[in-house]
Amino acid sequence: MRIDGTHYRSVWVDPGDGWSVRIFDQTRLPWSLDILRLVDEAQVAHAIRSMQVRGAPLIGAVAAHGVALALRTDPSGANLDRVVAMLGETRPTAINLRWALERMRAALHNLPAGERFAAAQAEAAAICDDDVETCRRIGEHGLPLLREIAARKPPGAPVNVLTHCNAGWIATVDYGTALSPIYQAHDEGIAVHVWVDETRPRNQGAALTAWELGRHGVPHTVIADNAGGHLMQRAQVDICIVGTDRVTRQGDVANKIGTYLKALAARDNGVPFWVALPHSTLDMRVRDGVAEIPIEERAAAEVTDLTGRTADGRIETIRVVAEGSAAANPAFDVTPACLVTGLITERGRTEASEAGLLALYPDKA
Amino acid sequence: MRIDGTHYRSVWVDPGDGWSVRIFDQTRLPWSLDILRLVDEAQVAHAIRSMQVRGAPLIGAVAAHGVALALRTDPSGANLDRVVAMLGETRPTAINLRWALERMRAALHNLPAGERFAAAQAEAAAICDDDVETCRRIGEHGLPLLREIAARKPPGAPVNVLTHCNAGWIATVDYGTALSPIYQAHDEGIAVHVWVDETRPRNQGAALTAWELGRHGVPHTVIADNAGGHLMQRAQVDICIVGTDRVTRQGDVANKIGTYLKALAARDNGVPFWVALPHSTLDMRVRDGVAEIPIEERAAAEVTDLTGRTADGRIETIRVVAEGSAAANPAFDVTPACLVTGLITERGRTEASEAGLLALYPDKA
Repeated sequence: MRIDGTHYRSVWVDPGDGWSVRIFDQTRLPWSLDILRLVDEAQVAHAIRSMQVRGAPLIGAVAAHGVALALRTDPSGANLDRVVAMLGETRPTAINLRWALERMRAALHNLPAGERFAAAQAEAAAICDDDVETCRRIGEHGLPLLREIAARKPPGAPVNVLTHCNAGWIATVDYGTALSPIYQAHDEGIAVHVWVDETRPRNQGAALTAWELGRHGVPHTVIADNAGGHLMQRAQVDICIVGTDRVTRQGDVANKIGTYLKALAARDNGVPFWVALPHSTLDMRVRDGVAEIPIEERAAAEVTDLTGRTADGRIETIRVVAEGSAAANPAFDVTPACLVTGLITERGRTEASEAGLLALYPDKA
Repeated sequence: MRIDGTHYRSVWVDPGDGWSVRIFDQTRLPWSLDILRLVDEAQVAHAIRSMQVRGAPLIGAVAAHGVALALRTDPSGANLDRVVAMLGETRPTAINLRWALERMRAALHNLPAGERFAAAQAEAAAICDDDVETCRRIGEHGLPLLREIAARKPPGAPVNVLTHCNAGWIATVDYGTALSPIYQAHDEGIAVHVWVDETRPRNQGAALTAWELGRHGVPHTVIADNAGGHLMQRAQVDICIVGTDRVTRQGDVANKIGTYLKALAARDNGVPFWVALPHSTLDMRVRDGVAEIPIEERAAAEVTDLTGRTADGRIETIRVVAEGSAAANPAFDVTPACLVTGLITERGRTEASEAGLLALYPDKA
């Protein structure tokens, strides 16, 4: 991803000191592009919990770097176990977090303590590089879906894609998952227009997806989360593509709260509903997503209060709920596999089912 | 409805001068209870367009008073026709507006000019009184639904009702439509808890429904519009009750954008989905709601900007969408009759179908 001519990843090691970890503070976007420096695992845990970094693949990548930071000062096996457990508790729903931490532990636990920090840095870097290549391939495998729709339309008529939350560059190390095919289609000259669900309560669509698409020059329109069903009824959506925080063995999809409602509307209106994911989002130990995936309940203040920019440029936080009223804030929901047209992975596209997943991932059986 | 011990309607004629019209400025709620004085039809048109008054029944009642105000200074037949046409253009989706205006015209056009103003005041007052009685009866006919759910639950376990937007006291002259049975159930001691969809983009749920329920002491929790599907999947919603802006001959329901998504989730999870309406919301001339009901597209700023209160008590408006990104704002959607469990009217409950409607309203055939 390029911002004002500079290429960035969403997480990187500071080239100056060779060990501290740099991220964008996503709670400040789109109003301010603040780069944070994380120096220990406590700061990494805070960044994940407070959603300075979010997006299932990025959480995993940053957590991997958090393990390296912990081992820099105490490379003992006990500390490795402690930091893996501690960071694993920061967010409950996305499985990439645990996947990345287990990959780190597996790579490091048999090494002599003196070699662990360097090996941890190398493994975290490999996780990041793998994520970049994985996301690029997700784009390649999603691209034909957009090409086919474009081919059925009058020349120049845009392919209308609806997406929920943010599954873009800033949710991964680079490229994104759901947005990766959109960027690739745009770059090869296919007319694409994206309906961006604002994605209450944290507005990752309005704040992050709209910002990303705008920087890349992809035409897009922000809508209230309530609007997608109506747009599908009126044939203004050709395809839905969303990301995910966990996909189960039978193809159920945990993703940002509200995804399920869009999947229902897509089915009711014959709109294809695709889910883009890297291998690290698969959780083959879980079958029934509705029954088994833990759904994070976040602070009520995320519903009652909103932050944005005033006309004269100040950043303000306002309450939008009547005084004295309580709020609830489940952060994810589960879309049953039967509502999912298919999955877009780095290995290709497949049906959202055990058979579909095992055909692509026999190594995960 | 009582606020701090005083009984109010949502619109009334000023008892001091006997002709100006008083309303609450609903764009200022819940932060400030401002009573506006409307002195001519232009102010009435502005109040409707800017949503100082909103809610299908209330719009009709206020428009009726607007006709009276216009006739106060010019009681000619030409002015009657002009004001009916002008006010009829202020909002396109709610049918109560046109119903009330046509009722005014029918009552007035054959009268001598000199009698028209007094007759218009009387007719507008009758429309308001009818609305109050109608809404009270809607509550009576909806109440058994809540009683039955309560009877199936352990003693004291609350009946969980989900509602969208605001179909309460402040959307009508008094009592409300969807909230009327809830108030009556609460008043007779049934434990009721309401999930209040915040209802982006204008947040009538978070701002008005939560405020109303709070004033009346009804337990409630505000949720992002995205959350309802998840709550239904987890069996945390016993029944949905919403209002409507127009119901067609075949039972299709136009209501605030996002209603359709909740109806889809209700069907998918076996949750009853009821729609409460007065006779004036029926539009028997229209059959297919998705194809035929005009959907108002409102200003993009309603999506991009939000107003609320800062921690230190200032009212601020903030932008929440990335700079440079466009927004779209369809204000209503249509829920097909097949997703509606039934209709709650002042004449009783019925199926959302032509047969169901004609059984209750043979006079509308």
